[in-house]
Parts: sequence; structure tokens; C-alpha cells
Amino acid sequence: MAGYFTEENSIEAVNGRMGKDINPRLAEVMACLIKHLHAFAQDIQLTQDEWNYGIEFLTRTGQMCSSERQEFILLSDALGFSMLVDAINNRRPARATENTVFGPFHVKGAPVRQMGDSINLDGKGESCLYEGRVIDLDGKPIEGARIDVWSDSAEGFYDVQQPGVQPRWNNRGIFVTRSDGAYRFAGIKPVSYPIPDDGPVGEMLGHLGRHPYRPAHMHYLVTAEGYQKLVTHIFVAGDAYLESDAVFGVKSSLIGVFERVVNGATLWRSPFDFVLARTAR
Amino acid sequence: MAGYFTEENSIEAVNGRMGKDINPRLAEVMACLIKHLHAFAQDIQLTQDEWNYGIEFLTRTGQMCSSERQEFILLSDALGFSMLVDAINNRRPARATENTVFGPFHVKGAPVRQMGDSINLDGKGESCLYEGRVIDLDGKPIEGARIDVWSDSAEGFYDVQQPGVQPRWNNRGIFVTRSDGAYRFAGIKPVSYPIPDDGPVGEMLGHLGRHPYRPAHMHYLVTAEGYQKLVTHIFVAGDAYLESDAVFGVKSSLIGVFERVVNGATLWRSPFDFVLARTAR
Repeated sequence: MAGYFTEENSIEAVNGRMGKDINPRLAEVMACLIKHLHAFAQDIQLTQDEWNYGIEFLTRTGQMCSSERQEFILLSDALGFSMLVDAINNRRPARATENTVFGPFHVKGAPVRQMGDSINLDGKGESCLYEGRVIDLDGKPIEGARIDVWSDSAEGFYDVQQPGVQPRWNNRGIFVTRSDGAYRFAGIKPVSYPIPDDGPVGEMLGHLGRHPYRPAHMHYLVTAEGYQKLVTHIFVAGDAYLESDAVFGVKSSLIGVFERVVNGATLWRSPFDFVLARTAR
Repeated sequence: MAGYFTEENSIEAVNGRMGKDINPRLAEVMACLIKHLHAFAQDIQLTQDEWNYGIEFLTRTGQMCSSERQEFILLSDALGFSMLVDAINNRRPARATENTVFGPFHVKGAPVRQMGDSINLDGKGESCLYEGRVIDLDGKPIEGARIDVWSDSAEGFYDVQQPGVQPRWNNRGIFVTRSDGAYRFAGIKPVSYPIPDDGPVGEMLGHLGRHPYRPAHMHYLVTAEGYQKLVTHIFVAGDAYLESDAVFGVKSSLIGVFERVVNGATLWRSPFDFVLARTAR
């Protein structure tokens, strides 16, 4: 009668139950998950009440999800898990611009604009000129790079969070580089904002003594044929939440310069060069 | 600029963010959870697509939950996590009857019946006489022990799964011991059945090459003042699924005898003594 589950053999008992003809990567991932899940319960001597709380927490997290809200991604973000997976999957040469979390507020199909255009449609916020180049690891300009940018509004909301309040595509746009690799557009200096904290993840942050704020940042998705996709933010230097981003997205190399340049209605200038690494051949 | 999240310091970066004045047990549990969660991603080098699948799987699991269905408990059961937590929290002296999973089909408020009564109300199934004693570690009878029993029907469904089909309280009842500690009731010899497999957990079992069946068992919740609560099953010896219970609930000591005893309409007899350990003083 060997093989029954015991406290001592729990990991082997569960993993030994997998069929022999299943997807080998799935078998590997599940075996690793079971190993860490069971070790967690043993290391911490999880109580029945804590298990009950966990079941109830996960259930509420799932039930909070809708077409406008993804509470499990928010949970992954708040536990630093999203950033870790991003890091594991985007190791790059030292000079290449680093990745950070994609976030839930990107929208496909933003309008392609002319270099120099403004993405700010509601006229609210402190105007900022964004400029620089998209280059390769040798400093050579990349032609045809597609720079998809988006930021929150002066009140700290993305347009999709306020349909009917903000104009559609407010603070969003796509710019395509020419042979000099240069880009230039006007937007606003973004502001810090809280991640949605009226659900289970907000409750968790409260219990952990953590605030829900993200430091101000401009989002970039930069793609060019033959180069690795870059998903990143440029953070506003000096922001109060740089050291305590609720989703752990800040990297030193991604803290951008924001210089005061009073020039007509433009109040700020933020220069940044994006350095792309080639895709593996 | 120390303290930003990196792939190397991810565990410390997340755990270091917790406030100082939070519940100390919560801090300990979360630190342990983060340690194992991040180690899982690193050990297996989790890909972005696998992360996406995981987020989507957890979301569907939460959305499958309703007042009649708890898919996260089912997931915990199918991963052996429920049995592990049960084992951690119910370590007992060797002679005491062992615990196993509670399961989702217990209903509070079942009718208290007289010793010798039948709990089978629909007349379907093979009749079985259950009898034995509730005793302490020294073999002394326990008076006033409350034995709450429940099983599936001859078709493999609990009454609550078939409202309107089975009579209410079919195959359920409570029996209270007198000074001799003895119990005796009639029920049916239970049958094996699949856990609900039309949701994410069933999909997972399919991918893992596992079947969803549980070996036939009678459920017991035995309580007595001054003794540890016993939540257990008695499994039917010889069942085809004893070695592959979908939720890992089988323990050698819980495989019961089912003897053929043709006596009027009664076809089986299952003797079992429940041995309770005292609660800590």
C-alpha cells in the first residue's frame, strides 16, 4: 500500500500522479509549482484559518475581474511578480534601454502623429517637450522605429478610465522615426497616481502598511524590425514615490531628466535616447 | 539610489516594503509566500506566455465560484494543498484516528437520529450497517460524542447536488453516543464519483493526464467535549481509485472493512472504532 499521501511525501505524491505523456514543459512547471507551494505551507506551518482566508481572498480577486479591471494582474504587480517575470524574459546588454511593466492601460490603435505634434488633447497639465533618438547598441539611428506613448492626465487618470470625461486618445499617440532616428512630441509632465485600491489588492496593501501610489511616468512601447521589443516607462526625477512604487517598476536607468524650459506654453523638456538590442538571429 | 527592484534582489525588495507596525504573523506569512513565489519563477524561468496563462487560469477559477461551487477549494484539493494543510494542523498520537479533507458537501443541521436508524431515504443503493465505538486513546468509551455522517447516493451525488431529485437529508444524519460509546446506523455502501470537472480544475487534470475520481467513502465529523475534532472518511476497501484519489485523501488507516453479511435487506457491514485524542489543556 505504498504511495499514499503523507505530510512527508506530499510533493512526490502529487507530482508522481502526473501522466507520462503530457506536455513536458507543463510537467516541469507544475512540478516546480507544487514543490514551492507545499514548501510554503510547511515552512510557515500554515493554519486552517489562514488557508480559509487565502481561498476567500483568491475568490474575491477573481470575482473583481471584469472587462475593465484585472485584479489578478494587479495582485501580480503588487507582489513584484510581474516585474520579476519581465526581468527574467528581458535580459539585455548593459547599454540597451531596460524594460519595465507593461501595465493595464495600453490601448491598441492609437493615432499615428507627425513628429512635433502634441498628444495632449484636453489642454490640462504642465506641457512638456519629449525628444531624443532611437538608436542601436553602436549609437546608430534606427529608421522606422514605432514609438507608442501614453500617460495619465493632469488628474492622474488614463483616458480609458474616464470615458466621456477625457477626449478619446487623450495623452496617447504613435510616432515613427525617419532616417535620423529622432523623435519629438509634446505631452504633459505626468503625475503620480494610485493603482485601483478599492478591491482585494488595495485591502492587502493596507494590511501590509503599503500605499498604492505609482511615481509619475510616461509609457513607451518601442518596436523596430530586427530589434527586441522595448516596453518601458520614463519616470519623472524627483517624484515622491520613486523609492516606493506600488508595483516595483522603477529602475535607476529609467529615471528621466525633466528640465524647466519656459518657452511659450511649454514648461518642461525631457530628453531621452532609446537604445534597442537586436533580436537573436 | 539603493533599493530599486532588480532580478537579483526581488524578494528583499518586495518584503522590505512592508510596514513596521503590521500584524507580525501576516508579515511572516507574506515574506514566506514572496520567497517561494519568486523562487518558483526563477527556478522554472517562467515565460511571459506562461504568466499570461496563469493569470487567465486564476481569473477563470475565481469566476467559476458561486454559492454552489468553490473552484479554488477544488484547485487546492487537486494540488494536494488541502491535504497538506490538514496534515500540518492535525498531527496526532499514532493510535488516534487520522483526519482527511472535509470536502465541500457537509451541510450543517442534519437531523439527529436514534441509534440503529437508517440515513438512506431514497431506498437506492446497497444497504450497509455501520457500527463501532467512539473511544479515547486508552480504549475507554466516550459518552456524548456527536457523529455527523454523510455520503453520496447510489448514483454518486450528494443530496445537495440534486435538490428536487433526492429527498432532503438523504444519506445524512447525526448520532450521539451513550455511556458505552457505541454507534450503529444503516446507510448505503457509497460509490466512487468524479469531482466537478467541467471547470478550470477539470481542464488542469486533463492536461496533467489525471482522472477526476474519488474512491468511495463515508464522511465523518466526530466531536466530543474535551477531545480534538475529527474530520475524516472511511474508504471502501477494494475501490479502484484508492491509489489515485483525485484529492489525495486516502490514508492506509482509513480504509475500512466492508464485509458481505446478507441479513434481510442488509448486504454489508462496516465496523470501525473512532479513537479521539484529548485537546491540549
